[in-house]
Amino acid sequence: MQISKGVEWAVHAASLMAALPEGQGLKAAALARYHELPAAYMAKQLQALSKAGLVQSSRGANGGYRLAKPAADISLWDITAAVEGAKPAFRCTEIRQNGPCAAKPKDCKNPCQIAAAFSAAEQAFRDSLKAVTLGDIGAQFAAHSPQEHLLHIFQWLSSEAEPLSQADG
Amino acid sequence: MQISKGVEWAVHAASLMAALPEGQGLKAAALARYHELPAAYMAKQLQALSKAGLVQSSRGANGGYRLAKPAADISLWDITAAVEGAKPAFRCTEIRQNGPCAAKPKDCKNPCQIAAAFSAAEQAFRDSLKAVTLGDIGAQFAAHSPQEHLLHIFQWLSSEAEPLSQADG
Repeated sequence: MQISKGVEWAVHAASLMAALPEGQGLKAAALARYHELPAAYMAKQLQALSKAGLVQSSRGANGGYRLAKPAADISLWDITAAVEGAKPAFRCTEIRQNGPCAAKPKDCKNPCQIAAAFSAAEQAFRDSLKAVTLGDIGAQFAAHSPQEHLLHIFQWLSSEAEPLSQADG
Repeated sequence: MQISKGVEWAVHAASLMAALPEGQGLKAAALARYHELPAAYMAKQLQALSKAGLVQSSRGANGGYRLAKPAADISLWDITAAVEGAKPAFRCTEIRQNGPCAAKPKDCKNPCQIAAAFSAAEQAFRDSLKAVTLGDIGAQFAAHSPQEHLLHIFQWLSSEAEPLSQADG
Protein backbone atom coordinates (compact mmCIF):
# COMPACT_ATOMS: atom_id res chain seq x y z
CA MET A 1 0.00 0.00 0.00
CA GLN A 2 1.85 3.03 -1.22
CA ILE A 3 1.09 6.54 -2.37
CA SER A 4 3.23 7.40 -5.39
CA LYS A 5 6.04 9.90 -5.18
CA GLY A 6 4.08 11.87 -7.76
CA VAL A 7 1.65 12.90 -5.01
CA GLU A 8 4.47 14.23 -2.82
CA TRP A 9 5.91 16.12 -5.76
CA ALA A 10 2.57 17.50 -6.92
CA VAL A 11 1.66 18.76 -3.44
CA HIS A 12 5.04 20.46 -3.05
CA ALA A 13 4.77 22.01 -6.53
CA ALA A 14 1.23 23.20 -5.86
CA SER A 15 2.33 24.66 -2.52
CA LEU A 16 5.01 26.62 -4.33
CA MET A 17 2.53 27.84 -6.94
CA ALA A 18 0.34 29.07 -4.08
CA ALA A 19 3.06 31.61 -3.29
CA LEU A 20 3.18 33.05 -6.84
CA PRO A 21 2.25 36.68 -7.38
CA GLU A 22 -1.13 37.28 -9.06
CA GLY A 23 -1.12 36.48 -12.79
CA GLN A 24 2.35 34.92 -12.75
CA GLY A 25 3.27 31.32 -13.56
CA LEU A 26 6.20 28.94 -13.31
CA LYS A 27 7.49 26.73 -16.07
CA ALA A 28 7.40 23.00 -15.49
CA ALA A 29 11.22 22.95 -15.66
CA ALA A 30 11.44 25.56 -12.89
CA LEU A 31 8.98 23.65 -10.72
CA ALA A 32 11.12 20.53 -11.18
CA ARG A 33 14.37 22.39 -10.56
CA TYR A 34 13.05 23.89 -7.34
CA HIS A 35 13.25 20.48 -5.64
CA GLU A 36 15.81 18.90 -8.00
CA LEU A 37 13.24 16.54 -9.48
CA PRO A 38 13.23 14.95 -12.96
CA ALA A 39 11.53 17.43 -15.31
CA ALA A 40 9.63 14.80 -17.31
CA TYR A 41 8.08 13.23 -14.24
CA MET A 42 7.19 16.63 -12.79
CA ALA A 43 5.55 17.55 -16.11
CA LYS A 44 3.43 14.42 -15.84
CA GLN A 45 2.15 15.46 -12.39
CA LEU A 46 1.42 18.97 -13.65
CA GLN A 47 -0.61 17.52 -16.51
CA ALA A 48 -2.62 15.50 -14.01
CA LEU A 49 -3.26 18.63 -11.94
CA SER A 50 -4.26 20.50 -15.09
CA LYS A 51 -6.65 17.74 -16.18
CA ALA A 52 -8.29 17.92 -12.76
CA GLY A 53 -8.74 21.68 -13.10
CA LEU A 54 -6.39 22.48 -10.21
CA VAL A 55 -3.82 24.38 -12.24
CA GLN A 56 -4.05 26.48 -15.37
CA SER A 57 -1.35 26.61 -17.96
CA SER A 58 -0.28 28.58 -20.98
CA ARG A 59 1.56 26.98 -23.84
CA GLY A 60 4.50 28.10 -25.92
CA ALA A 61 7.80 29.74 -25.11
CA ASN A 62 6.33 31.48 -22.09
CA GLY A 63 4.30 28.45 -21.04
CA GLY A 64 3.83 28.12 -17.36
CA TYR A 65 1.60 26.89 -14.60
CA ARG A 66 -0.26 28.51 -11.76
CA LEU A 67 -3.11 27.44 -9.50
CA ALA A 68 -6.52 27.62 -11.13
CA LYS A 69 -8.26 28.37 -7.80
CA PRO A 70 -7.44 30.06 -4.51
CA ALA A 71 -5.11 27.96 -2.35
CA ALA A 72 -7.83 27.75 0.28
CA ASP A 73 -10.05 25.92 -2.23
CA ILE A 74 -7.55 23.16 -3.10
CA SER A 75 -7.29 20.32 -0.61
CA LEU A 76 -4.61 17.66 -0.30
CA TRP A 77 -7.28 15.13 -1.30
CA ASP A 78 -7.94 17.08 -4.52
CA ILE A 79 -4.27 16.74 -5.43
CA THR A 80 -4.04 13.10 -4.34
CA ALA A 81 -7.11 12.20 -6.40
CA ALA A 82 -5.78 14.15 -9.41
CA VAL A 83 -2.50 12.21 -9.36
CA GLU A 84 -3.59 8.77 -8.09
CA GLY A 85 -7.20 8.69 -9.20
CA ALA A 86 -10.13 8.39 -6.84
CA LYS A 87 -10.72 4.64 -7.10
CA PRO A 88 -10.96 2.89 -3.74
CA ALA A 89 -7.71 1.37 -2.51
CA PHE A 90 -9.61 -1.70 -1.27
CA ARG A 91 -11.18 -3.30 -4.33
CA CYS A 92 -13.79 -5.83 -3.28
CA THR A 93 -13.92 -8.73 -5.74
CA GLU A 94 -17.06 -10.25 -4.21
CA ILE A 95 -15.38 -13.52 -3.30
CA ARG A 96 -18.32 -14.18 -0.98
CA GLN A 97 -20.22 -15.21 -4.12
CA ASN A 98 -17.71 -18.00 -4.88
CA GLY A 99 -17.26 -21.52 -3.55
CA PRO A 100 -19.22 -24.19 -1.70
CA CYS A 101 -21.03 -21.69 0.54
CA ALA A 102 -21.42 -18.93 -2.03
CA ALA A 103 -23.80 -16.14 -1.02
CA LYS A 104 -26.64 -15.70 -3.48
CA PRO A 105 -26.56 -12.58 -5.67
CA LYS A 106 -29.91 -11.46 -4.23
CA ASP A 107 -28.29 -11.42 -0.76
CA CYS A 108 -25.34 -9.35 -2.01
CA LYS A 109 -27.04 -6.09 -2.90
CA ASN A 110 -25.20 -4.32 -0.09
CA PRO A 111 -21.40 -4.38 0.26
CA CYS A 112 -20.19 -7.10 2.59
CA GLN A 113 -19.20 -6.12 6.13
CA ILE A 114 -15.51 -6.33 5.24
CA ALA A 115 -15.76 -4.07 2.17
CA ALA A 116 -17.92 -1.63 4.15
CA ALA A 117 -15.32 -1.40 6.93
CA PHE A 118 -12.51 -0.65 4.45
CA SER A 119 -14.71 1.86 2.67
CA ALA A 120 -15.31 3.67 5.98
CA ALA A 121 -11.58 3.71 6.71
CA GLU A 122 -10.82 5.14 3.28
CA GLN A 123 -13.49 7.77 3.81
CA ALA A 124 -11.76 8.76 7.06
CA PHE A 125 -8.47 9.06 5.14
CA ARG A 126 -10.08 11.21 2.45
CA ASP A 127 -11.93 13.38 4.94
CA SER A 128 -8.69 14.04 6.77
CA LEU A 129 -6.95 15.15 3.55
CA LYS A 130 -10.01 17.15 2.45
CA ALA A 131 -9.74 19.15 5.67
CA VAL A 132 -6.26 20.43 4.77
CA THR A 133 -5.89 22.98 1.97
CA LEU A 134 -2.87 24.48 0.27
CA GLY A 135 -3.77 27.62 2.17
CA ASP A 136 -3.35 25.76 5.47
CA ILE A 137 -0.04 24.25 4.35
CA GLY A 138 1.27 27.67 3.31
CA ALA A 139 0.24 29.31 6.57
CA GLN A 140 1.86 26.53 8.65
CA PHE A 141 4.97 26.64 6.52
CA ALA A 142 5.30 30.40 6.94
CA ALA A 143 4.76 30.14 10.70
CA HIS A 144 7.48 27.50 11.12
CA SER A 145 10.16 28.67 8.68
CA PRO A 146 12.98 31.12 9.41
CA GLN A 147 12.37 34.56 7.89
CA GLU A 148 15.53 34.35 5.77
CA HIS A 149 14.32 31.07 4.24
CA LEU A 150 10.97 32.65 3.29
CA LEU A 151 12.80 35.65 1.82
CA HIS A 152 15.01 33.33 -0.20
CA ILE A 153 11.95 31.57 -1.63
CA PHE A 154 10.26 34.86 -2.59
CA GLN A 155 13.47 36.05 -4.27
CA TRP A 156 13.69 32.83 -6.25
CA LEU A 157 10.01 33.08 -7.20
CA SER A 158 10.35 36.66 -8.40
CA SER A 159 13.34 35.70 -10.54
CA GLU A 160 11.61 32.67 -12.08
CA ALA A 161 7.95 33.66 -12.34
CA GLU A 162 6.65 34.96 -15.65
CA PRO A 163 3.32 36.44 -16.65
CA LEU A 164 0.80 33.80 -17.70
CA SER A 165 -0.61 35.69 -20.65
CA GLN A 166 -2.51 33.04 -22.54
CA ALA A 167 -4.16 30.70 -20.07
CA ASP A 168 -5.37 27.71 -22.05
CA GLY A 169 -7.09 25.80 -19.32
CA MET B 1 -2.91 3.58 -4.32
CA GLN B 2 -4.18 0.05 -3.90
CA ILE B 3 -4.59 -2.47 -1.13
CA SER B 4 -3.58 -5.91 -2.38
CA LYS B 5 -6.12 -8.64 -2.96
CA GLY B 6 -4.21 -10.57 -0.31
CA VAL B 7 -5.75 -8.33 2.35
CA GLU B 8 -9.28 -9.08 1.11
CA TRP B 9 -8.51 -12.79 1.07
CA ALA B 10 -6.82 -12.82 4.46
CA VAL B 11 -9.70 -10.97 6.12
CA HIS B 12 -12.25 -13.35 4.62
CA ALA B 13 -10.18 -16.38 5.64
CA ALA B 14 -9.72 -15.03 9.17
CA SER B 15 -13.46 -14.33 9.40
CA LEU B 16 -14.14 -17.95 8.48
CA MET B 17 -11.61 -19.19 11.05
CA ALA B 18 -13.46 -17.10 13.64
CA ALA B 19 -16.42 -19.46 13.18
CA LEU B 20 -14.40 -22.65 13.83
CA PRO B 21 -15.27 -24.81 16.82
CA GLU B 22 -12.82 -24.67 19.74
CA GLY B 23 -9.57 -26.51 19.06
CA GLN B 24 -10.34 -27.15 15.39
CA GLY B 25 -8.45 -25.87 12.38
CA LEU B 26 -8.79 -25.62 8.61
CA LYS B 27 -6.18 -26.61 6.07
CA ALA B 28 -4.83 -23.88 3.80
CA ALA B 29 -6.33 -25.74 0.84
CA ALA B 30 -9.79 -25.72 2.45
CA LEU B 31 -9.52 -22.00 3.23
CA ALA B 32 -8.63 -21.39 -0.42
CA ARG B 33 -11.38 -23.66 -1.73
CA TYR B 34 -14.00 -21.92 0.39
CA HIS B 35 -13.80 -18.84 -1.84
CA GLU B 36 -12.34 -20.57 -4.94
CA LEU B 37 -9.00 -18.83 -4.51
CA PRO B 38 -5.55 -20.03 -5.67
CA ALA B 39 -4.16 -22.26 -2.89
CA ALA B 40 -0.57 -21.02 -3.18
CA TYR B 41 -1.55 -17.37 -2.83
CA MET B 42 -3.87 -18.15 0.07
CA ALA B 43 -1.03 -20.06 1.77
CA LYS B 44 1.14 -16.95 1.43
CA GLN B 45 -1.46 -14.82 3.23
CA LEU B 46 -1.80 -17.44 5.97
CA GLN B 47 1.95 -17.41 6.49
CA ALA B 48 1.82 -13.63 6.87
CA LEU B 49 -0.97 -13.96 9.45
CA SER B 50 1.05 -16.63 11.25
CA LYS B 51 4.19 -14.52 11.29
CA ALA B 52 2.18 -11.67 12.85
CA GLY B 53 0.87 -14.00 15.56
CA LEU B 54 -2.75 -13.78 14.39
CA VAL B 55 -3.16 -17.45 13.50
CA GLN B 56 -1.63 -20.62 14.86
CA SER B 57 -0.85 -23.58 12.71
CA SER B 58 0.09 -27.22 13.00
CA ARG B 59 2.28 -28.90 10.45
CA GLY B 60 2.09 -32.29 8.80
CA ALA B 61 -0.72 -34.33 7.27
CA ASN B 62 -3.22 -32.82 9.69
CA GLY B 63 -1.75 -29.33 9.39
CA GLY B 64 -4.23 -26.57 9.72
CA TYR B 65 -4.84 -23.02 10.78
CA ARG B 66 -6.97 -21.35 13.40
CA LEU B 67 -7.01 -17.94 15.03
CA ALA B 68 -4.36 -17.48 17.71
CA LYS B 69 -6.55 -15.02 19.67
CA PRO B 70 -10.23 -14.37 20.27
CA ALA B 71 -11.94 -12.81 17.22
CA ALA B 72 -12.71 -9.74 19.32
CA ASP B 73 -8.96 -9.17 19.76
CA ILE B 74 -8.06 -9.15 16.05
CA SER B 75 -8.78 -5.95 14.16
CA LEU B 76 -8.93 -5.36 10.43
CA TRP B 77 -5.84 -3.19 10.84
CA ASP B 78 -3.96 -6.12 12.44
CA ILE B 79 -4.68 -8.20 9.34
CA THR B 80 -3.92 -5.38 6.90
CA ALA B 81 -0.58 -4.69 8.61
CA ALA B 82 0.26 -8.41 8.67
CA VAL B 83 -0.28 -8.71 4.91
CA GLU B 84 0.80 -5.29 3.63
CA GLY B 85 3.25 -4.25 6.31
CA ALA B 86 2.83 -1.21 8.53
CA LYS B 87 5.03 1.21 6.59
CA PRO B 88 3.36 4.53 5.83
CA ALA B 89 1.71 4.74 2.40
CA PHE B 90 3.01 8.30 2.00
CA ARG B 91 6.79 8.09 2.05
CA CYS B 92 8.29 11.51 2.52
CA THR B 93 11.58 11.81 0.66
CA GLU B 94 12.47 15.20 2.19
CA ILE B 95 12.57 17.00 -1.14
CA ARG B 96 12.35 20.24 0.83
CA GLN B 97 16.08 19.79 1.50
CA ASN B 98 16.89 19.86 -2.24
CA GLY B 99 17.30 22.66 -4.74
CA PRO B 100 17.97 26.40 -4.84
CA CYS B 101 15.85 27.12 -1.73
CA ALA B 102 16.71 23.95 0.19
CA ALA B 103 15.66 23.99 3.82
CA LYS B 104 18.55 23.49 6.20
CA PRO B 105 18.76 20.13 8.01
CA LYS B 106 18.55 21.92 11.38
CA ASP B 107 15.17 23.34 10.31
CA CYS B 108 13.88 19.89 9.28
CA LYS B 109 13.78 18.12 12.61
CA ASN B 110 9.99 17.94 12.44
CA PRO B 111 8.13 16.44 9.48
CA CYS B 112 7.10 19.04 6.95
CA GLN B 113 3.48 20.19 6.96
CA ILE B 114 2.68 18.04 3.93
CA ALA B 115 4.10 14.83 5.41
CA ALA B 116 2.36 15.58 8.72
CA ALA B 117 -1.02 15.98 6.99
CA PHE B 118 -0.65 12.65 5.18
CA SER B 119 0.48 10.99 8.39
CA ALA B 120 -2.66 12.24 10.15
CA ALA B 121 -4.85 10.95 7.32
CA GLU B 122 -3.18 7.54 7.48
CA GLN B 123 -3.68 7.50 11.23
CA ALA B 124 -7.40 8.13 10.66
CA PHE B 125 -7.46 5.19 8.22
CA ARG B 126 -5.69 2.93 10.70
CA ASP B 127 -7.85 4.01 13.62
CA SER B 128 -10.96 3.24 11.61
CA LEU B 129 -9.74 -0.29 10.83
CA LYS B 130 -8.51 -0.79 14.39
CA ALA B 131 -12.04 -0.11 15.62
CA VAL B 132 -13.44 -3.10 13.69
CA THR B 133 -12.62 -6.62 14.89
CA LEU B 134 -13.30 -10.03 13.41
CA GLY B 135 -15.85 -10.35 16.20
CA ASP B 136 -17.72 -7.32 14.84
CA ILE B 137 -17.56 -8.64 11.28
CA GLY B 138 -18.91 -12.03 12.39
CA ALA B 139 -21.76 -10.49 14.37
CA GLN B 140 -22.76 -8.21 11.48
CA PHE B 141 -22.51 -11.09 9.02
CA ALA B 142 -24.73 -13.30 11.18
CA ALA B 143 -27.28 -10.51 11.61
CA HIS B 144 -27.53 -9.87 7.86
CA SER B 145 -27.34 -13.40 6.41
CA PRO B 146 -30.25 -15.76 5.82
CA GLN B 147 -30.45 -18.57 8.40
CA GLU B 148 -30.07 -21.26 5.73
CA HIS B 149 -26.83 -19.64 4.52
CA LEU B 150 -25.40 -19.65 8.06
CA LEU B 151 -26.45 -23.29 8.47
CA HIS B 152 -24.76 -24.17 5.19
CA ILE B 153 -21.51 -22.56 6.38
CA PHE B 154 -21.57 -24.38 9.72
CA GLN B 155 -22.20 -27.70 7.93
CA TRP B 156 -19.27 -27.07 5.62
CA LEU B 157 -17.07 -26.09 8.57
CA SER B 158 -17.95 -29.22 10.52
CA SER B 159 -17.14 -31.40 7.50
CA GLU B 160 -13.79 -29.67 6.84
CA ALA B 161 -12.47 -28.74 10.28
CA GLU B 162 -9.96 -31.02 11.93
CA PRO B 163 -8.44 -31.02 15.41
CA LEU B 164 -5.33 -28.88 15.65
CA SER B 165 -3.30 -31.25 17.76
CA GLN B 166 0.21 -29.89 17.47
CA ALA B 167 0.06 -26.12 17.37
CA ASP B 168 3.50 -24.95 16.32
CA GLY B 169 2.93 -21.27 16.65
